[in-house]
Amino acid sequence: MGEFELIHQYFATAPCAQGGAGVALGIGDDCALLELPAGEQLAISTDTLVAGVHFPDPCEPFLLGQRALAVAASDLAAMGAAPLGFTLALTLPHAQPAWLQAFAQGLNAMAQCCGLSLMGGDTTRGPLSLTLTVFGSVPRGQALRRSGAQPGDLLCVGGPLGDAAGALPLVLGQRQVAAQISVPLLARYWSPQPQFALGLALRGRATAALDISDGLLADGEHIAAASGVALRIELERLPLSSALLTLLELPAARACALSGGDDYVLLFTLPPSQWPALQAAHGELRVIGSVAAGQGVQLLDAAGQSITPAARGYEHFKAASAAK
Amino acid sequence: MGEFELIHQYFATAPCAQGGAGVALGIGDDCALLELPAGEQLAISTDTLVAGVHFPDPCEPFLLGQRALAVAASDLAAMGAAPLGFTLALTLPHAQPAWLQAFAQGLNAMAQCCGLSLMGGDTTRGPLSLTLTVFGSVPRGQALRRSGAQPGDLLCVGGPLGDAAGALPLVLGQRQVAAQISVPLLARYWSPQPQFALGLALRGRATAALDISDGLLADGEHIAAASGVALRIELERLPLSSALLTLLELPAARACALSGGDDYVLLFTLPPSQWPALQAAHGELRVIGSVAAGQGVQLLDAAGQSITPAARGYEHFKAASAAK
Repeated sequence: MGEFELIHQYFATAPCAQGGAGVALGIGDDCALLELPAGEQLAISTDTLVAGVHFPDPCEPFLLGQRALAVAASDLAAMGAAPLGFTLALTLPHAQPAWLQAFAQGLNAMAQCCGLSLMGGDTTRGPLSLTLTVFGSVPRGQALRRSGAQPGDLLCVGGPLGDAAGALPLVLGQRQVAAQISVPLLARYWSPQPQFALGLALRGRATAALDISDGLLADGEHIAAASGVALRIELERLPLSSALLTLLELPAARACALSGGDDYVLLFTLPPSQWPALQAAHGELRVIGSVAAGQGVQLLDAAGQSITPAARGYEHFKAASAAK
Repeated sequence: MGEFELIHQYFATAPCAQGGAGVALGIGDDCALLELPAGEQLAISTDTLVAGVHFPDPCEPFLLGQRALAVAASDLAAMGAAPLGFTLALTLPHAQPAWLQAFAQGLNAMAQCCGLSLMGGDTTRGPLSLTLTVFGSVPRGQALRRSGAQPGDLLCVGGPLGDAAGALPLVLGQRQVAAQISVPLLARYWSPQPQFALGLALRGRATAALDISDGLLADGEHIAAASGVALRIELERLPLSSALLTLLELPAARACALSGGDDYVLLFTLPPSQWPALQAAHGELRVIGSVAAGQGVQLLDAAGQSITPAARGYEHFKAASAAK
């Protein structure tokens, strides 16, 4: 048995590979088998993370395992899907037992946190990268699409923005700060929590939703384009954590919130009548603006005047790190 | 819109991304949505191909697109699943339009041949590799597992063995031969045909099945171990193509068939009573041995004596190419 066959066996015996809701057959045959409840659709998303592009190389394998699964699973939450399982395609230059054990522990911790079962995968030799494909279930017709936002809806987010982008100099070791600042920010980078409970609560309420991965402005454009509406974001309403505001001046913190990416909180639109009940159950939600007729994303200052952000786009990890 | 966003749009408009059986929502939202008929299970398999490990680098992108999907889809056929769709995670060092167009054409040709719809994916920058996750459906309880082989069963294969392994020196440009030999052998390497029709026909008939990817001996061990039986392979019954027998002497051709891998034909066990009807409908099938009490894979000569093959294992592309 070769080293990569051993790795396969190793993952096959991991706690998160011991089956779960809907998993009729896990690792060990040509295919895994998944069952869906009657009337449910299967939600599927695939994400690849490449060393040096999407995460620093080298990095702590435990943290990488956590983060890789969280990033992929967040797409399920954004669709309003309940978690089922995932496959892992892991490409490694070498099979190092200590690395693999720590990676699997991190992966397993996030899998258990999310309620996702490892159903299968592939392990190959090559430059370090990971592709995770995640599976969830959602009642037919209730998936949260990007295309239903209506003028008059509220524009809302599921929690503070900008922490992961603010943490990047800490992730890269370019800056040292006190633990009470670095610990919460690094946690937002390395172990974002997919908002499954919120996604389920938004079924039948939200008119559009997605998870913020490329930054609020860039992802807001996706909802605006898919729905054929304009999104108006009020700069003063952006939720910023106290840790981020301790690390950065307000303009820099807002830039992280607008364009930094890697937040993995939900951005959604909601008829105003739905807001009170939803907020009562999910205290971290914030209204950050509104939906209007028109197109694109508009940023408004406290006086309601349109302003132009310095950067609207998403930068890959490599570009972002080079720019600091 | 960045170059990788453009690629995403490019694949989203490919013919194979225009939906198909069961695809309720394709490319463009956080997740794709798939529907399953009542009483069916979803079969899932993931395969990664790394440049220089699983295929030569550089290589023809059209051929790579064909082969990558065929290799992944073959696992569905081996499970007796009907094809539904797939996701593509493509990591590329650069976005070159001509390369992408040829790759997508090859992918599309195999997708249409197999009846698979491109449902979603991810495109990232990094060293060239591909991860495909394929989806099929199979009635509950009818999936072809590896674990049901019984003593007394016939051991069968879905077609000639060893062609892809024999083609490797041609793939690598290490040997030139006449077109009537090279064309069929290169086709077996670059565009293996997943045996979906055979897989469907084996539902309710075969007691165990898989697709041969690592070589007959290595994959035979998987059925023997999962079923708790011995497989007896009769050397003289190995089906070898005329092209392979023109390229290689008989012992070398047999070595390719036993250990070469990359065949992507089905290996299965069958009660003898099932053979006549099955063979009548699938002329390429061959009985190559039988199932007995015991364990492991035994190779028998014409006199029924056990012999030891020179190599039983699978070698990655890199190792195989280095050895030639």
